[in-house]
Amino acid sequence: MKIVVNVSLKNGVLDSQGKAVHHALNSIGFNNVDNVRVGKQIIFDLNENNEAKAKSDVTKMCEDLLANTVIEDYSIEIVK
Amino acid sequence: MKIVVNVSLKNGVLDSQGKAVHHALNSIGFNNVDNVRVGKQIIFDLNENNEAKAKSDVTKMCEDLLANTVIEDYSIEIVK
Repeated sequence: MKIVVNVSLKNGVLDSQGKAVHHALNSIGFNNVDNVRVGKQIIFDLNENNEAKAKSDVTKMCEDLLANTVIEDYSIEIVK
Repeated sequence: MKIVVNVSLKNGVLDSQGKAVHHALNSIGFNNVDNVRVGKQIIFDLNENNEAKAKSDVTKMCEDLLANTVIEDYSIEIVK
């Protein structure tokens, strides 16, 4: 099954990349944007048929490797 | 309205970050993953009530700044 993991900085953590994108958007004329945040999206195929097992495997991947849970939140999406 | 832009490398473009994540997942015991791709997710508020105008504005942001359309694809999601 196809897995999509979204990792983003927690609210309250300074997002310097988001600030840079916000500034760049303003400088090319888009002044109607606000609260720009930049995160990561990790997409992969998981060779596992049991959805509950897949969910627990991917949660472990996020906790151990994909996200820094001190400053980042993650969400997991299972696409059939 | 809230906008989510997902930017990912086109198929066929070498994704070295994805390869590194794939290797790291293997090394901590997850051998059931494949085709790992790492992309960016840009989330922001857009002060615009007209959905068609929002869509065209965000498309222009992607073409001009957020994505390198030579090597990257993007998708736009409008969350109310």
